[in-house]
Amino acid sequence: MSVMGLTPLETIAIWAVFGVALLGLAYAVFLRSQILREDKGTPQMQEVWNAIKDGADAYLKKQFRSILPLIAILTIALFFSVYIVPPSPEALERFEGVAPATVRLWIGIARALAFVMGALFSLTVGQLGMRMAVEANVRVASASKRSFGDALRIAYRAGTITGMLTDGLGLLGGTIIFIILGIAAPDALLGFGFGGTLLALFMRVGGGIFTKAADVGADLVGKVEAGIPEDDPRNPAVIADLVGDNVGDCAGMAADIFESYEVTIVSGLILGLALWHITGRLEWIIFPLIVRGIGVVSSIIGTYFVKAGKTGTSADAMSAIFSGFLTSAVISAALFFIAGFLYLNTPAMNAWGGWWRLPTAVGVGVLLAILIDRLTEYFTGTHAAPVNDIKKSADTGPATLILNGVAVGFESSVWSVLVIALTIVASIFIFGTIPGVEGADNATFILYGVAMTGIGMLTLTGNNVAMDSFGPIADNANGIGEMAWHGQTDKATKDAQQIMADLDAVGNTTKAITKGVAIGSAVIAAVALFGSFLVDVSRAQEGLGIPLTEQIKSIGIRVDSPQVFVGMLIGGALPWLFSSFAIQAVSRAASLIVLEVRRQFKLGVLEGTVKPDYRQAVSISTAAAQKELVSLALLGIVTPIVVGLLLGVEALGGFLAGIIVSGQLLAVFMNNSGGAWDNAKKLIEDEPRDPANNLGKGSERHKAGVVGDTVGDPFKDTAGPALNPMIKVVNLVSVIIAPIVVQNSGATGAALFGVWAVALVLLGVLTWAVVRSKAPAPSMTDL
Amino acid sequence: MSVMGLTPLETIAIWAVFGVALLGLAYAVFLRSQILREDKGTPQMQEVWNAIKDGADAYLKKQFRSILPLIAILTIALFFSVYIVPPSPEALERFEGVAPATVRLWIGIARALAFVMGALFSLTVGQLGMRMAVEANVRVASASKRSFGDALRIAYRAGTITGMLTDGLGLLGGTIIFIILGIAAPDALLGFGFGGTLLALFMRVGGGIFTKAADVGADLVGKVEAGIPEDDPRNPAVIADLVGDNVGDCAGMAADIFESYEVTIVSGLILGLALWHITGRLEWIIFPLIVRGIGVVSSIIGTYFVKAGKTGTSADAMSAIFSGFLTSAVISAALFFIAGFLYLNTPAMNAWGGWWRLPTAVGVGVLLAILIDRLTEYFTGTHAAPVNDIKKSADTGPATLILNGVAVGFESSVWSVLVIALTIVASIFIFGTIPGVEGADNATFILYGVAMTGIGMLTLTGNNVAMDSFGPIADNANGIGEMAWHGQTDKATKDAQQIMADLDAVGNTTKAITKGVAIGSAVIAAVALFGSFLVDVSRAQEGLGIPLTEQIKSIGIRVDSPQVFVGMLIGGALPWLFSSFAIQAVSRAASLIVLEVRRQFKLGVLEGTVKPDYRQAVSISTAAAQKELVSLALLGIVTPIVVGLLLGVEALGGFLAGIIVSGQLLAVFMNNSGGAWDNAKKLIEDEPRDPANNLGKGSERHKAGVVGDTVGDPFKDTAGPALNPMIKVVNLVSVIIAPIVVQNSGATGAALFGVWAVALVLLGVLTWAVVRSKAPAPSMTDL
Repeated sequence: MSVMGLTPLETIAIWAVFGVALLGLAYAVFLRSQILREDKGTPQMQEVWNAIKDGADAYLKKQFRSILPLIAILTIALFFSVYIVPPSPEALERFEGVAPATVRLWIGIARALAFVMGALFSLTVGQLGMRMAVEANVRVASASKRSFGDALRIAYRAGTITGMLTDGLGLLGGTIIFIILGIAAPDALLGFGFGGTLLALFMRVGGGIFTKAADVGADLVGKVEAGIPEDDPRNPAVIADLVGDNVGDCAGMAADIFESYEVTIVSGLILGLALWHITGRLEWIIFPLIVRGIGVVSSIIGTYFVKAGKTGTSADAMSAIFSGFLTSAVISAALFFIAGFLYLNTPAMNAWGGWWRLPTAVGVGVLLAILIDRLTEYFTGTHAAPVNDIKKSADTGPATLILNGVAVGFESSVWSVLVIALTIVASIFIFGTIPGVEGADNATFILYGVAMTGIGMLTLTGNNVAMDSFGPIADNANGIGEMAWHGQTDKATKDAQQIMADLDAVGNTTKAITKGVAIGSAVIAAVALFGSFLVDVSRAQEGLGIPLTEQIKSIGIRVDSPQVFVGMLIGGALPWLFSSFAIQAVSRAASLIVLEVRRQFKLGVLEGTVKPDYRQAVSISTAAAQKELVSLALLGIVTPIVVGLLLGVEALGGFLAGIIVSGQLLAVFMNNSGGAWDNAKKLIEDEPRDPANNLGKGSERHKAGVVGDTVGDPFKDTAGPALNPMIKVVNLVSVIIAPIVVQNSGATGAALFGVWAVALVLLGVLTWAVVRSKAPAPSMTDL
Repeated sequence: MSVMGLTPLETIAIWAVFGVALLGLAYAVFLRSQILREDKGTPQMQEVWNAIKDGADAYLKKQFRSILPLIAILTIALFFSVYIVPPSPEALERFEGVAPATVRLWIGIARALAFVMGALFSLTVGQLGMRMAVEANVRVASASKRSFGDALRIAYRAGTITGMLTDGLGLLGGTIIFIILGIAAPDALLGFGFGGTLLALFMRVGGGIFTKAADVGADLVGKVEAGIPEDDPRNPAVIADLVGDNVGDCAGMAADIFESYEVTIVSGLILGLALWHITGRLEWIIFPLIVRGIGVVSSIIGTYFVKAGKTGTSADAMSAIFSGFLTSAVISAALFFIAGFLYLNTPAMNAWGGWWRLPTAVGVGVLLAILIDRLTEYFTGTHAAPVNDIKKSADTGPATLILNGVAVGFESSVWSVLVIALTIVASIFIFGTIPGVEGADNATFILYGVAMTGIGMLTLTGNNVAMDSFGPIADNANGIGEMAWHGQTDKATKDAQQIMADLDAVGNTTKAITKGVAIGSAVIAAVALFGSFLVDVSRAQEGLGIPLTEQIKSIGIRVDSPQVFVGMLIGGALPWLFSSFAIQAVSRAASLIVLEVRRQFKLGVLEGTVKPDYRQAVSISTAAAQKELVSLALLGIVTPIVVGLLLGVEALGGFLAGIIVSGQLLAVFMNNSGGAWDNAKKLIEDEPRDPANNLGKGSERHKAGVVGDTVGDPFKDTAGPALNPMIKVVNLVSVIIAPIVVQNSGATGAALFGVWAVALVLLGVLTWAVVRSKAPAPSMTDL
């Protein structure tokens, strides 16, 4: 690392961060052994549990097989991409004395390996996290017969394991790449980010379709048509529904947050390197890593404090979890400023506007996370006006309930955009006011500030993921209890069921909060990546000898240029196409589940004369999810390449701007209206049951509420959250291909022909993806 | 006009266009006298009709009173705006020899008068068009007892009157301003466009809320709860529903298309003047006026050919209307190229790339109108896959039906954006390839091409408006028949009812097609206005002595600048806020209607023991619509000013780009999913009635269809279409205030304080508008 001119203190700091990453992983292993020692309950419970476990494992295996070819192709493509664009001057500097051809080979290998590492880490977080959740749920169910505190502890700590995996692996990957490649890191970092994001997209899309097809299908026939409760063991889709909670909410969400965690540090390091070029200071790169290290330590401390007594209510659980979060937040905020003061308060750094700017930007991120949390809570929580208005509109039937939810979702997305806008404005004030910095450099500083805000937002990822995984664990435990103890009415069972119902309710809230943070951080990360795109393009142009005044950092992305405007229109449209296909996939798959459940009900499953066949529903959901994976991912991967090749690099920038604006609005709309409908339905269910007076379960109002909830399901659990990784896949692909686009911008003759040929082939691929996404779901005979 | 250096031929052409405008108006007067001579039917029919007429008139009167103060304030503001920004050099040139202070006064007066004229014309088109529709509907009902051909002719010709008013007044206003002010026209043209657009926004928002509150309320209690048919005279909201068709579909749509017609010519003339600066040629300004003149003549000829025999089906009516459209299209396309060849094929113009470019761009516009028409027909028509899929999804209840419709709407908006993008690409090929034109000039040429495409799209406005007004006329005639002939079962009545049902079905199709053209032209017009914005800002900067390299036409609107990105985020969010409030307004008002209808049903209206009180529902809808008008309009007027003052003129450009992208996507989504649900419901209603087998009216599937239709109502008839004028109000306000923003961009001291003070006051106004929009609808006691 001597190449980079690190001080001994900085070298120690980097290795300390590396050590903290390992510490996070060790803590995860420690918690795992704790959990596995817990009791697994009765044989009936284990029977249900085994069905869930098998379904989840089978799904992940199938999914892995579906995506493997694409991963292989992309790994090779990433390796060979260095043969189109020569290694950066930094790479040559890093490996001074090595022949350029060898450096090129090394960088190619590094890029491909980093991509595989990113994909593997993301997969590991998702898979291990989900397996851990499955291990935990039966133990939570069993513990609920003993004590409230035990059940809470097991559920939360199992979630913390996933949180620590996210923290540990995210930090480990970035640090390793930085230690090995130093200033040549951006190339490999992009591959690392891309691998993680792509896997997250797969997990989100696949898991999202699986879980909602099962859920919607199970509810439509079970709850609405047959009038049996949720999680009734007679419903043949009930196991698929429980499996779905794991593959969607658990594996999907964990992988998603992992990639946000990863991508924010990737864009932070790339922009930090750009500042190194401007200022000659390495602090811009080292400090983000220190911030991340601080976050892991604070998360470990905070999560360990989540405890409750032998008995308790959902309010106790919520306050225990929240005080853990607060502990972590206070510790980390204090440490940010202490670290900033000790490390950055030097004359050299103060020449760039003072040490306080960096910790302040990170602090804004923590604040932003809390603000988005409050906004989400307002628009989707049961205590505020919006959800209560939606509940009231159930009086006049499902149509007005839907309309109200749509209006609430629309409005919430506006406020959420304004919060993001305020964050950028904050960065303008913090990093746009450094004396002596002007023009393009000023914009780079501001975008670096945005990236630091993103890093700040995800500081408490350990806590966030723990809170989020807590949701499906409690949900599944509740389901196992309902199914395994079906018909038991003794007090111990009733008490245990109450404990789990309480934990399940808490889980719904924590899940909604995490979702808000996830999309907020996704947009911030996308804006930072947009900054990386500019840096990357300018450097590629510099490499080609294009003078500074004609580089993109000087001329900018001008939307008044018709080509750029066209790029922006296409970028704006992409999230809509993606969401449309995701929703269509869920409805198609849900229809198949409906038909299957109806078929089994006709055979006598409802009367109990025939045992339900749970595996069929799992197979249908699995097959339906698999069918969509590759084509939806291709939309995100191929579209930016086509836009870049046909319309040029500036239009590609317009495309990115369009996708961020429209993706953010659409994602928040779908997440929040879905969440609001869900909770409006819950409010109606909480009423005393009295259908004659149109109150509570079974009433017309409840039916309207179920319609709203069902519409919201694919909004909030499939299309909405899948937009997070989709936006970032598009951004990362754009950053990666930018140098190639720049190189071919003035192509003539054979080269131009080549560009058009590639563009046409890719357009063909896109057409295939669109056609495939619109094709009907596989019927049972194809399985 | 000698100032402008027009040739004698050009002078004749301008006056000929002026004559054609008068011809269009004379044709409208002629048709009116034809219609008024027709028979008004039986006293029962006239009783129903009088109720509709009174309701519609009362609504328009109230609306006029609500908006008058804002119009007055804006007229004064527009007059005084010339005292902040000095008159353009063109104005001084036009009035050479007059003292600058006098010129300033004149321009101020011209601007204020043009604004009033625009508002008045828009109001006239809406009001007269609606009154004509009301006059016609009872006559169509009466004629349907005589002959199919008579009924069709009266309905279509009455619509044509509105079409001719649109054509005639739109052309008249633009031409008058141009004849009087010549090269100084842009200033007044902006006022003219703003007046028309603002009134259209009021008519759209007010009419849209009125019509859907009445419709949704009437359906929810009548169709769904009480199970009585649509237009059943026992439903106390049925007259409000029929009034709504007139104030929403007729007055609102007519005003909306009028302003699109107006704004495309305004932006065409402004960009034409910019080309005059570049090329020294006046053809860029004269040719668009000639194109418009040609369109009016072709419309007159084509509409006159719409005829049918004594008996006929909806297919006959559709083919008669379509062949009229085709006649107009062929005539106008031929005349474009002939006029282009005769007028533009001169050495001077061929130096700018050949005469064919202009007629080709206009021709692309005609093609674009047809393409959007086909797209809309595919996604909302009953014959194509999407609507049939939605219908099929009714098998599994309202939730899957809603999901499918949302997915269809999302997807349709993507294709529609791609068509718009292709249009811009076409303009890049047509006007971006002129030899010797480069850089900023190249972009101006391309944007001029986009404006010409918009003018081409709206060439057949006469036919379009006729087709659109046909819808509510046929719908109301059908309603009058249902109500006045309630219980009559003789063959003559049955036949007449069949004729009107057929015409009503045709009206639904023609309405949907026009809506597609309206939003498409709105986006094209907005893009052209975006071009006018750039021209306007650059000219203001030039006036302040800012060197060319620092003017916006050189540096562009750079979304990579954080401020501009923030502007774009806010712009993207605005249509969502606007739509959210519009939908909330409809649901709130509909709930009041529901309560009122239920109250009257309890009194015995349903059993026929008490006569329904129709006026109450009309009053509720009127009051609810009035309440929202001003606050929703203020969102569009004030937001761009705040963004411009606080973030600067470049961020205001980003704001415009954001609003176009997100507004287009959202508007098409809402229009098309609403239309698709409507038709899916109609398909179910067309099935043989058999509720036991879940077929036709009264079945569970039908109930699901009604839920979808009800959700779609405010989408497609309130929020979606109101976005057209909203987007343009925002664009026009931005163009108008741009010079003021530019002038204050470097403000310091007292001036800076002034800017902040104004911005804060306007932020207060915005807050008031938001709070007011969220306030509950007025209850009956407040009426």
